[in-house]
Amino acid sequence: MSTSLDPDDEVVVLAHERFPNRAKTAVGVLRYADYDVAAVLDRDHAGDTVADHLPGVSDAPIVADMTEALAVADPDALLVGIAPIGGGFDESWRGDVRAAIEAGCDVVAGLHYFLADDAEFAALADDHGVDLVDVRRPPDDLTVSEGRARDADADVVLTVGTDCSTGKMTTTLELVAAARERGIDAGFVPTGQTGIMIAGWGIPVDRVISDFAAGAVERMILDAAEDHDVLFVEGQGTIVHPAYSGVTCSLLHGAMPDSLVLTHSAGREAIHGYEDFPIPPVETYVDLYEDLSESVAPASVVAGALDTRAQDSEAAAEAAVDDYADAIGRPATDPVRFGVSEILDAL
Amino acid sequence: MSTSLDPDDEVVVLAHERFPNRAKTAVGVLRYADYDVAAVLDRDHAGDTVADHLPGVSDAPIVADMTEALAVADPDALLVGIAPIGGGFDESWRGDVRAAIEAGCDVVAGLHYFLADDAEFAALADDHGVDLVDVRRPPDDLTVSEGRARDADADVVLTVGTDCSTGKMTTTLELVAAARERGIDAGFVPTGQTGIMIAGWGIPVDRVISDFAAGAVERMILDAAEDHDVLFVEGQGTIVHPAYSGVTCSLLHGAMPDSLVLTHSAGREAIHGYEDFPIPPVETYVDLYEDLSESVAPASVVAGALDTRAQDSEAAAEAAVDDYADAIGRPATDPVRFGVSEILDAL
Repeated sequence: MSTSLDPDDEVVVLAHERFPNRAKTAVGVLRYADYDVAAVLDRDHAGDTVADHLPGVSDAPIVADMTEALAVADPDALLVGIAPIGGGFDESWRGDVRAAIEAGCDVVAGLHYFLADDAEFAALADDHGVDLVDVRRPPDDLTVSEGRARDADADVVLTVGTDCSTGKMTTTLELVAAARERGIDAGFVPTGQTGIMIAGWGIPVDRVISDFAAGAVERMILDAAEDHDVLFVEGQGTIVHPAYSGVTCSLLHGAMPDSLVLTHSAGREAIHGYEDFPIPPVETYVDLYEDLSESVAPASVVAGALDTRAQDSEAAAEAAVDDYADAIGRPATDPVRFGVSEILDAL
Repeated sequence: MSTSLDPDDEVVVLAHERFPNRAKTAVGVLRYADYDVAAVLDRDHAGDTVADHLPGVSDAPIVADMTEALAVADPDALLVGIAPIGGGFDESWRGDVRAAIEAGCDVVAGLHYFLADDAEFAALADDHGVDLVDVRRPPDDLTVSEGRARDADADVVLTVGTDCSTGKMTTTLELVAAARERGIDAGFVPTGQTGIMIAGWGIPVDRVISDFAAGAVERMILDAAEDHDVLFVEGQGTIVHPAYSGVTCSLLHGAMPDSLVLTHSAGREAIHGYEDFPIPPVETYVDLYEDLSESVAPASVVAGALDTRAQDSEAAAEAAVDDYADAIGRPATDPVRFGVSEILDAL
């Protein structure tokens, strides 16, 4: 699917009461999207600017609602950049979405609640000729994998993890950016809602019916391989997750990668949200991912990416990275803290 | 979901032009369902009886259409016992479904085409107060797994395989029957359309969105564990399938079985329908399934089940079973040819 977002678009990002720490999509878009963020909606921080809260990205005003945003910008779209637990639509956002549509903006969201199924928004969008884009709704013409991704005319690198939320999307996007800086024709293959909003295309693999999940990944690989020499595929979950391992397995066998980058969050001891399930020793994952890929399309873990946010000092972060590299027997780094040169060199 | 079929029901099974060799569901129902089959519809074999084509099950007339079936029986339901490639509805069946509804029969089908979404059938079913049961439609209230299946108050046995169509459903049903003969309170947990039609309940895991697939399995385990001491769970696919491995992985981690039975089809060398993907040495699977379960809920491969249909003689079948047992280092049998005592003893 395509989100209708182009690199020269300007967007407003809705992040009420959650910017920046509980607004993963808003922050991802600010950090990695090609299009420009003209304003952020957060009624709790109206009057501040993005730079007051999130260094290292383009600055933009934070305003209280869409009407204020329209006073300072001429955006092409409103993005919903937060996702409450359960993925519902917060009725306090209705006025902002309404104002956006009436101003001729497309509205892009990754909620479980589909904007296009909302009677008011659907009618209003129709009246104003704008698109309501629900990135979590998979295409309806998906089918089973034909096992062809290994024939794709591109090197394929998949991020895998020891758990959810270990930095797979961030690592993947940092690798794409760094590879492009080296002159490599690198493409990003998004598989989750935030990645799709950033890239402007993609399929939310976790929402695809399980028979078609690998097929959805295969389709993205074959499409993207026509345009790039190297593909960096955003991974999901972990192969030992009590709930989501099937998604991870479909990604591994659907993408048929050549190389894997193993992401981990330093110090995490149990599966996030499943505290009775301890994370096994990290070296276990190297064998699991390599053995599971072997009989379908062999892939090697070539490097590790460690999230060291829990380490206060640079020295502690460096030590954690060294320990991690030793444990998995591969070069490693923290992509955010230390860059991804080690990983690119290993690829 | 429940199919509305009770053990004391009588059903008619539609299997036009495909009985028995291309009518897997019809044959499964005849062999394993508790309810009675009053007639089989197959216009190519009208006038024969089931016993002419399929020994070892209760006999029933084969008739040309539903009108003829209603002349010889007073059924509670019509079951669609065949699934054309693509899972579509064959318009040549429309008269049979119409006649069934008008006679007050529920209609149960496992097609991708949902009978309840067919305007004519929906209106007719409404008029006659009967149910249209599409077993391939998952419940709409599924959610993510909570990782609780390992706490179920029952021993859980999952069939896994080296490929699709290696006898997982048959092995599972033979184990249930044999365990019950030994006085064990055994339950069958169906995960595919045929199993669901046989058992009268279940969730088609391959049709569940991938985030909820393990959760669907968990729900079935927790429900069934309240009624039985031992659960035999119908497996799906194989962990090295290019398209379906995600379903297999969701089953393994959703069911959190204590024991695994590894099914294989003697002589098969490549993944069915994916001839460029060779089946790895069977012993590889023992490690893959055990290693993958280890970090979530440890399970052991305790026995093997070999489909020896390709072996003409008993001696050749016995030799194939012996070879298989040696290769996987576990006791093995062909459940259809030699029974499942070896497996039950190993459990």
